[in-house]
Amino acid sequence: MISKILVPTDGSKAARKAAKYAVEFAKQTSAALTLLSVIDKRFVVSQSIPSVASPTHLIEPIEDYLKQAAESYMEEIEILCKHNNIQSKAIIRSGHPVEVIVKEAEKLKVDLIVMGSHGKSAIKAAFLGSVTIGVIHKEIKIPVLLVRR
Amino acid sequence: MISKILVPTDGSKAARKAAKYAVEFAKQTSAALTLLSVIDKRFVVSQSIPSVASPTHLIEPIEDYLKQAAESYMEEIEILCKHNNIQSKAIIRSGHPVEVIVKEAEKLKVDLIVMGSHGKSAIKAAFLGSVTIGVIHKEIKIPVLLVRR
Repeated sequence: MISKILVPTDGSKAARKAAKYAVEFAKQTSAALTLLSVIDKRFVVSQSIPSVASPTHLIEPIEDYLKQAAESYMEEIEILCKHNNIQSKAIIRSGHPVEVIVKEAEKLKVDLIVMGSHGKSAIKAAFLGSVTIGVIHKEIKIPVLLVRR
Repeated sequence: MISKILVPTDGSKAARKAAKYAVEFAKQTSAALTLLSVIDKRFVVSQSIPSVASPTHLIEPIEDYLKQAAESYMEEIEILCKHNNIQSKAIIRSGHPVEVIVKEAEKLKVDLIVMGSHGKSAIKAAFLGSVTIGVIHKEIKIPVLLVRR
């Protein structure tokens, strides 16, 4: 019985498609959704490095910017959930996307992870994005539903 | 709306688990299941080759044996479907498993493919089996739900 679904999202077109699929899926199964956006620490550091001696003062504004963006694209899905009477919540975490997705899925005891086949950083020619590949190759017991682009 | 699900199976422990998951899933979504078993032509040929000059006379009995085995393990799932009032049918095809699964999924216009993370030929240490990897790397539009071992 599927009652709790985790939907990792990075705001990309493919992730949006997956989130909308998850909403339809939740309508059919009466499941609740948890939207998860991960602020990728590696990205934040790489953006704040160039030619600055001590870039630490840049990390916080970049993180804030990414958090605001995440709130914004998750809000879009939350509104869609509300319109369809689907219970949902949105959470933002920091860290390595694959590790955080797996950790949150286990912590929240979700029954299913619904995610796009590609995320933001996907190479166009690749059949699967790196975060998706990371999650499906992790040794977890939770089923993963891949929504294709 | 998910109404038609394809469940490829090779009779392995992981495939059985995936099929049972698909039955539970169909109960919740009222979807119909199509069980698909693929007689792997490469396997049949490799089994009939050793030291026989013209091994073609062995291909038929090996195929028959594999078909009987497939019928038997699909019957188990069909009985489970019947007990749960789930519409199901079982089909057997010959060819390359990945190609046949994708072709049948598109031909049958299923909404979802539910499959195990591993099949019969899986290396124990690998996180995903080769047929599963093949299907998820194919450029198809149909979502794939991976059931973990």
